[in-house]
Parts: sequence; structure tokens; C-alpha cells
Amino acid sequence: MNKTIASIILFSAVIFSFTTMQTKKKILFFGDSITQQGAGPNGYIKKFDSLLAQNGLSSRYETLGAGISGNKVYDLYLRMDSDVLAKSPDAVVIFIGVNDVWHKRTSGTGTDADKFEKFYNAIIKKLKAKNIAVYLCTPSSIGEKNDFTNPQEGELNAYSAIIRKIAADNNCPIIDLRQAFTDYLKTNNPDNKDRGILTADGVHLNMTGNIFVAQKMFDVLSKSFIK
Amino acid sequence: MNKTIASIILFSAVIFSFTTMQTKKKILFFGDSITQQGAGPNGYIKKFDSLLAQNGLSSRYETLGAGISGNKVYDLYLRMDSDVLAKSPDAVVIFIGVNDVWHKRTSGTGTDADKFEKFYNAIIKKLKAKNIAVYLCTPSSIGEKNDFTNPQEGELNAYSAIIRKIAADNNCPIIDLRQAFTDYLKTNNPDNKDRGILTADGVHLNMTGNIFVAQKMFDVLSKSFIK
Amino acid sequence: MNKTIASIILFSAVIFSFTTMQTKKKILFFGDSITQQGAGPNGYIKKFDSLLAQNGLSSRYETLGAGISGNKVYDLYLRMDSDVLAKSPDAVVIFIGVNDVWHKRTSGTGTDADKFEKFYNAIIKKLKAKNIAVYLCTPSSIGEKNDFTNPQEGELNAYSAIIRKIAADNNCPIIDLRQAFTDYLKTNNPDNKDRGILTADGVHLNMTGNIFVAQKMFDVLSKSFIK
Amino acid sequence: MNKTIASIILFSAVIFSFTTMQTKKKILFFGDSITQQGAGPNGYIKKFDSLLAQNGLSSRYETLGAGISGNKVYDLYLRMDSDVLAKSPDAVVIFIGVNDVWHKRTSGTGTDADKFEKFYNAIIKKLKAKNIAVYLCTPSSIGEKNDFTNPQEGELNAYSAIIRKIAADNNCPIIDLRQAFTDYLKTNNPDNKDRGILTADGVHLNMTGNIFVAQKMFDVLSKSFIK
Repeated sequence: MNKTIASIILFSAVIFSFTTMQTKKKILFFGDSITQQGAGPNGYIKKFDSLLAQNGLSSRYETLGAGISGNKVYDLYLRMDSDVLAKSPDAVVIFIGVNDVWHKRTSGTGTDADKFEKFYNAIIKKLKAKNIAVYLCTPSSIGEKNDFTNPQEGELNAYSAIIRKIAADNNCPIIDLRQAFTDYLKTNNPDNKDRGILTADGVHLNMTGNIFVAQKMFDVLSKSFIK
Repeated sequence: MNKTIASIILFSAVIFSFTTMQTKKKILFFGDSITQQGAGPNGYIKKFDSLLAQNGLSSRYETLGAGISGNKVYDLYLRMDSDVLAKSPDAVVIFIGVNDVWHKRTSGTGTDADKFEKFYNAIIKKLKAKNIAVYLCTPSSIGEKNDFTNPQEGELNAYSAIIRKIAADNNCPIIDLRQAFTDYLKTNNPDNKDRGILTADGVHLNMTGNIFVAQKMFDVLSKSFIK
Repeated sequence: MNKTIASIILFSAVIFSFTTMQTKKKILFFGDSITQQGAGPNGYIKKFDSLLAQNGLSSRYETLGAGISGNKVYDLYLRMDSDVLAKSPDAVVIFIGVNDVWHKRTSGTGTDADKFEKFYNAIIKKLKAKNIAVYLCTPSSIGEKNDFTNPQEGELNAYSAIIRKIAADNNCPIIDLRQAFTDYLKTNNPDNKDRGILTADGVHLNMTGNIFVAQKMFDVLSKSFIK
Repeated sequence: MNKTIASIILFSAVIFSFTTMQTKKKILFFGDSITQQGAGPNGYIKKFDSLLAQNGLSSRYETLGAGISGNKVYDLYLRMDSDVLAKSPDAVVIFIGVNDVWHKRTSGTGTDADKFEKFYNAIIKKLKAKNIAVYLCTPSSIGEKNDFTNPQEGELNAYSAIIRKIAADNNCPIIDLRQAFTDYLKTNNPDNKDRGILTADGVHLNMTGNIFVAQKMFDVLSKSFIK
């Protein structure tokens, strides 16, 4: 009898945990080196996990990092099947665009604006075909100066505008990091430094930046996906 | 009786032409503006058609142009399904790489060497999965000078070397236009001009260039695919 | 007697006009294609002449154009002796910097920021050694969009900041065209166009732009040099 | 008496050494970081000194380094008075051009070919006006591969051709390092490495490269200047 009861309890527990596992929704972060670092210790994905925990949601959502250093929009497209669709995510946060602009200057291998838009739309189309919720981020920064003198900020703003348009066209929520960074730096960078506020080098997030980005993402996902 | 015989003849003719159509093998040329122009009057694809006709092969092979101006290797990858696989070609001649190098200088949007190789291999993999015969061309020229002073020829040679390696790795025949152009220009450009020998502007083929390229392609395809 | 009087009058007239000629002060505009076009019909230097005339100052000041298409700061330095000092100007308005930024993108031949400053200071030093009044302009625009998305505006702002610093260091009045253009475009470009407001192509001045620039220059020179 | 003799000897020694000092001819090496390093221990200028010593010429010739990292042709022009003419050299060896090409790719701040020629000629003109013997070097290498795939070698060859033309136009002896490097690497780089043969990084000379360059310079100067 005891044995029978024990068996039932154990069986129920297994079923319950199995069910829980089954229903945990996957949020995948898809991007470049910022996202690759975001999956590391103190990275923005870890900070996002903390926000889930703080809100008692850890049992219902899990996160996955899919960032690779140096990636541009077409690199994401190339590795979608293996790195995203194969993981069956419920939501994908796309955070791309910095290298598409940056590499124009550093190596002559940036991405033309029209092709940036084309590949971005192709990615969204594939994700939507699998009923995945898609969130778009604008690229945060290449240089943190707040007097409009970061060498490539004009183009970074232009590509951010393209992403906002893509988001509107595809009815995808936008996490407007470019705007958020610009606003934050306006009041939190009194010495007009080009790094060290939200980033370590003008591009890659420092501790404050990782917390900042995680919060912005959590804010937007909480309005629709995370409940 | 006459009617019956006429019907039989007509029927046979229809069947025959239908059969012929069915068995005509499709050769698709996949590339950039050089190939887009190649499909136009006097373009290299038209010259290739003439070579098929001269060799009495027009009833067995047909050609298709799939070139789009400004394309780089990743643009080919993006439009493979609609522009290549949907046409069910038996052979595909890939002629890409000029813009991957050229645009580094003209607009800061060329292609990194490692990514060039990655996308190129991804294209070949998809084609081979459909049992399509794949032929690779090295990029012909950016400038026709023969004293080693064309500004981007070092990099064009480097990307040609990558393509030769990809061809060897994948066991694909190579149409080595880069080598053929270099050899031809060595003896046919006595005034060391940067255009006007095989091209109109250093890149896009003139009449001589279109004939030259068609012949080189025909030579290689005749060794394996065209019989 | 009549003859004597006539002679005296004639003599006086000659002396007077000679004196006038001698005392006409020379204002030389030193720059790139914007200034080269500025010396043409409807150019900003012609508009500046009109402002002198409107203010009854034509007999006391004359203008000289010394703009050459494609010039960067070091090109000005190279041709100072022949094109500026040899003309013995009383004031020189330096309007340079657009190509130093622009050509980074278009041909890979822009000017490093530190060298821009070095050559600019060398020019000023040579002019000051001849007791020439020196006026500095910030570079007006590369693209007229007013939503901060002109591709090279970050760097144009950075080079403008360098020029403001040089002006302060050398105690030279500044004609802040960059600021003036930005302010004007904020309220006069409702459709966020990249050209057609003050320029024909984003860089070279249209009629409105030529009048605008002439006025800004006249305003600043009127405070010190033109009296 | 002893004192008198001692005085005479001392006096003679002073006179002699003074005379020697007076008649020692100065050879100044004018260039970029390669020349800046060339003045350091084991640098090519030190190796040149050794060649003078080996040939018993140390008492008649002395060398001076005037290389500054990052310099392009116009930087040489800017600092001619202070760094060259003020030293009253008898001969100047100009070794410039690597950065004029290299920086096109690395920072978008290379030098246009036509301006390269203009500034180079302006430097020669100033030196010749002082009756200084002028020697021109072609730029050695950006990458040491010997299969024509160094990314910028086409342009480096083009700028070398410009320098050869300038040398001919101005009747200046040429030290053709570009040709010498190309020939040497053809037979001494069996593994087609991009560095490590004559340079440490493709550009800056290693020990072998410093000895090689010193010898080439000595060979040419021995034909006319050093006797």
C-alpha cells in the first residue's frame, strides 16, 4: 500500500515536471558578438533570466543565446535552420545591424541598405511561417558620444529607421535600443565620452549596458509574449 | 485514309517535339550584371547558344540567364529557390565574385573572404542535393592592365584562389576566367589599357569578351556535361 | 586757364581713383568645389559682392575666389603661396573640410582628424605671419536630412568641432555653417529630403544655399573686418 | 717647450677633427614608420652605417633618420623645413608610399594618385632648390605573398610606377625596392607566406629586410653620391 502510494506520488511528480518542461516557452536571442557575449556571465541574456526569476516566471520561460561574433544580417539568414528553427523557439529577438554599418569602415564589408532590408524581411518571413513571435531590436551604438559626432552614427540611425519600418510592415514589436541608448546617453554622459557608459568599447555592452538592454527587452516582451 | 495518315503524322510530330522538349537539358547561368548582360543581345549566353547551334546541339540543350546587377555571393544564396531551383536546371554555371571584391572599394560593402567561401559552399550544397551539375567560374577582371597595377587585382586573385579551392573540395569543374583573362591580356593589350580589350569598362564584357567567355565555358562544359 | 583747371580736375580724379584702388581691401575665399562654384554666376562670392554693393561698400572691398574642386585641407596648404599669398589678400575665408570627410567613403582618400588639425593650423600660421585676417568656416553638409541619418554627418560634426577648437585656439572668428545649416534644415525640410533645400546634391549649394552662405559670411565679417 | 708642442698637437687635432666634421656629408632618410624603425637598433639606417664602415667611409659620410610613423607623402611635405632642410643634408633618400596606399583600406585616408604625384614633385623641387641630391624609393610591400594575391599589391605597383615616372622626370636615381622585394620573394618564399620573409608583419622590415634594404640603397648611392 505504501509502495503503491509512493509509486503514485512519484509518477505524478514525473508527469508534472515533464508537463512543466513541455510548456516552458523558449525565447531565443539571435545576433552578433553583443549577443554572443550576452549569453556569457553577466551578459544581457543572463540579466534577462534574472528578470524572469524576479517575476516568478522562470518555470514558464527559458532563454537561448544564438549570437556569433562578426555576424551581419545575411549571416543570420545563412544559419537560421541550424541555429534557430532547429531549436523550436516560441519567440526570437533579433538584434543585428551594428556590423552591417561598422564593417563598412573597418573592412569595406558592410551591408548595403537595400540588401539589409531584403535579408531582414527574409528572416522574418521564415520565422513567421513557423508561428514564432518575432521581436526586432535597433542597433544600440557605435560610439557613445552625445554631441552627434560618433563617426558612423548617421548611418546607424539610418539602419535603425529601416528596422523600424520593417517592424511596422511586419507587425512585429520593436525594442528600440538605438533610441533608448541615445536618450540615456544624453543625460548620463556629461563628459561626452565615446565609451564606458553603457559599453566597454563603444559597441560591446558593459555591466550597466547588459542590465539596461535586458530591461528594455523584458519591458517589450512583457507587453505581449511574457504573461 | 489520308486523314488517318495525316493524323498519325501530326500526332507523331507533336509527340516527337514534346519528347524533344522534355529531354532538352537546361543550363542555367547564375551571376551578377555580367550575366544579366550576358542574357541580352550579343551577350555571352547568346554566344553560348550559337556554339550549341554550330555543334548541332540546340535540340538537346537550352540556356537560361539568372544574373542580377550588383549581386554578390550571398545575394545568389538568397534567391536560389525562386531563381534557380524553381527552374529545374540540369547544370548551373556560377559566375560570381567581382562585386564581392569591387564593392569593398566603391561602397564599403564587399564580402569578407571567409564568408565568401561559406556562402559559396552553401550554394553548391543545395544544388548538389538536387543532382544538378555545378560549374564554377573565377571572376574575370576589375581593370584590364597587364602590368599588375589594377587597383584591386590582388584581391581578385585571392578570391579566385578561394574559388579554385572550393571547386577542388566539391569536385566541381572550374572555368578559370581569371587565368584566361590574365593570359589573354598579357599578349593582347600592348598599350596596357585598363579597358577596351575584353571589357567595356574594366568589368563588363564587350563583344570580344562575350565571345571569349562563351567559348571558355563551352570548352569546359563539353568535357563533361555537353556531349 | 580752363586747361589748367581741367588738368587739375583730371589729375585729382586720377589720384582719387588710384587711391581708391590702392585702399580697396581684398577678401579671398579659399576652398574646394563649393568655393570654385561660388566664384561662378550666382555663386556665393557673387552674392557676397551684392551684399557689399547693397551696403555701399563696393568701392572699399573686393572679393577673390580661390576654390579648386576636390581640395582637402592639405591641398590648400600646398597651393597657399601661389594662390593666396601671391594675391596679397587682407582677409582670407577658409571653407574646407567636406572632402576630407566625404572622400573617406567615396574613394578611401579622406583626411585623418589629427592631420586635418595639423594642416589647418599650418595654414593659419602662414596667413597670420602676413597679418592677414583669417575666418574659418565649418563644413556645411553632406546630405540635408534632418533626422540625423545622413551617412557621414557624425564625422562632419566631429570635423566641425575640430575647426571650432582651431578657431578658438587661434583667436579667429568662425562662420559656423554646419550649425547654421543644421538649424535651417530643422525647420525648412519638412519632407526630410537629402538634397534640394540649400544644396543641389547634398553638398554643392543651390541658389538658396549660395545666398544663405553669403549672408552668414557677411554677418560675421561685418562684426570685425568690414566696417 | 713640452707645453708648446702639446698645444700644437692639441690645436692640430682640434683643427683636423673640425675639418673632418665639416666635410662629412649628410645622408638623410626621409619616410614613415619603416624609416623610423630604420633609425633604431638593427634598423636599415644602422645597417647602412655598417656598410659605410665596411667600406672605410665612416669618416666621410654620416646618416640621419627622419621617419615618422603613419606618414604619407603630404606629411613629408608639411615637415620638410624643420625636419629636412634645417639639417642641411647633402643627400635625401625618400622612402614613402606604403601608407598612401595602405590607409585607403585601413582607415579611408589614403592618398589619391594624382595628389601623390603632385606632393612628391613639390618635395623634390624644394630639395633640388637647395642642391640636395635626391634618391627615390618605391614602396616595398604590403604583404609578402608571391602568387599575386596580396590585397593591395595592384595599387602598390601602380604607385611604384608613379614614383619611377617621377624619378625619370626629375632625373633622380631610383632605389626600386618594390621590384627588388618582388624578385626576392619569388624565389625566397616557397610557402607563399604573407609575412616573415623580409618583414615582420607584411610591411615593417625584419632583420633580413633591414639588411636587404640597406644594401639596395648603398648599391644605388655608391653609383653616384658615395665615392
